Amino acid sequence: VIDETEIHGFIKFAERLAELARAQILPRFRDGGGIDSKSRIAFDPVTDADREAERAMREAIRAEYPDHGIIGEEFGAERGQLDFRWVIDPVDGTRAFVCGVPTFATLIALEQFETPILGLIDQAFTGERWIGANGGCSYIRDGGSIACSASSCTELSGARLTTTDPRASGYFDAAEAEAFAELSSKTCVQRFSLDAYGYALLALGQIDLVIETSLKRHDWSALVPVVAGAGGVISGWDGQPLAESPRGRIVAAATPALHAAALQVLSGR
Amino acid sequence: VIDETEIHGFIKFAERLAELARAQILPRFRDGGGIDSKSRIAFDPVTDADREAERAMREAIRAEYPDHGIIGEEFGAERGQLDFRWVIDPVDGTRAFVCGVPTFATLIALEQFETPILGLIDQAFTGERWIGANGGCSYIRDGGSIACSASSCTELSGARLTTTDPRASGYFDAAEAEAFAELSSKTCVQRFSLDAYGYALLALGQIDLVIETSLKRHDWSALVPVVAGAGGVISGWDGQPLAESPRGRIVAAATPALHAAALQVLSGR
Repeated sequence: VIDETEIHGFIKFAERLAELARAQILPRFRDGGGIDSKSRIAFDPVTDADREAERAMREAIRAEYPDHGIIGEEFGAERGQLDFRWVIDPVDGTRAFVCGVPTFATLIALEQFETPILGLIDQAFTGERWIGANGGCSYIRDGGSIACSASSCTELSGARLTTTDPRASGYFDAAEAEAFAELSSKTCVQRFSLDAYGYALLALGQIDLVIETSLKRHDWSALVPVVAGAGGVISGWDGQPLAESPRGRIVAAATPALHAAALQVLSGR
Repeated sequence: VIDETEIHGFIKFAERLAELARAQILPRFRDGGGIDSKSRIAFDPVTDADREAERAMREAIRAEYPDHGIIGEEFGAERGQLDFRWVIDPVDGTRAFVCGVPTFATLIALEQFETPILGLIDQAFTGERWIGANGGCSYIRDGGSIACSASSCTELSGARLTTTDPRASGYFDAAEAEAFAELSSKTCVQRFSLDAYGYALLALGQIDLVIETSLKRHDWSALVPVVAGAGGVISGWDGQPLAESPRGRIVAAATPALHAAALQVLSGR
């Protein structure tokens, strides 16, 4: 168990990491728009932003907490078996980034014994930041901070639903796409292509339900303290913890009742 | 024909309209997140934002240009048959607005003899603004202004494609969804749910192709000078002007070659 002073220090440090990432990412956002690339996902500005932001964050972690482990999207695991480890994804939402859409995010998590105890979601262009820790979640913008609270939505019929791509050709396989379509038809509004920003909006009470698959630890670790800190529920499609979810299937909901209603459609699929 | 001083006056006035709209919209954005509504699209903050922003803009137009017509989403046409008319949509992307996503937009167009000669796209939360007029397009943020230029993408295989919703259950009917799926499979990256913001990103060289249907005049009029002013091409799926496009089918492309490649898949569908 860690005390409040210690977690406060970790939060300040996570914010410093987010600033280091912003400094690498923002100058490369919407750069190279004229490049006629056949492989946009691999084009230089985004891979540079990813690599340089992760490099800067790793350096800072090594200097500040030499005994902490690191798992990152670009450079893999570094002493990842220790009590504390940082799990970072410099640019979540690569497709949003290459399309100039300000919904990509930097994800920073601190795990203790493989459980995320701190999660930070940072949007460099809009200057928005979410920090989940200590059972709460803060939203920070323009120097101001508010406490996050998920919505009170309890029924699918009133739910605002999001996923990255509803098609079977995207992240979903055919069975997952079918399950999503069934769930989607019961909800009120659907929005797509938000990546981690969708979970951040859930913490703000603006999205009620996020359904995804194919998420890796660096994609979801930071989301857990943010969603839970805002009063939401996050698990695998079978209701189990995310670390045990097959195919990285994830469901995040504003309330336990809405979570249960979604699981009823999704579990066993 | 109008001279440069006159169009400069219209641009300044369009910016004033955008400011009036922002003042009504921004305080209502992300408001009421806790409301458990079964009909999110009709919930109060967005309808209030829509109505009050349009009311403020109409009042200003009547005072400044009493002989100009007005077409708006909320209150219909007002002396709409005159030489000059303003075509306004206070909140394009109602679904984005109710989900807290900062990609909704205020659209303001000035038409002369039913041809849009000035188009303005405003995003209140990110503080971004696009103004197309005089054969050019400007992007304005933080007091700075840059000239917009669409990308040089000429082939579908290198194209970043967007539409509001790829499903037949959304804006597309079954045949349109099939045509979109065929086109989409030939492109490089797909993003969804951007509404008018997708056309604005095309003007910035970040999106290469936008395919949509079901657009009304207040949805597309402001987009035409923005896309054309950045060097892009915009038309119906049959290549005809938008006013004559059946079912409001629209294709916007970064280059004439990319536009032609898209029409080859879409026309006759």
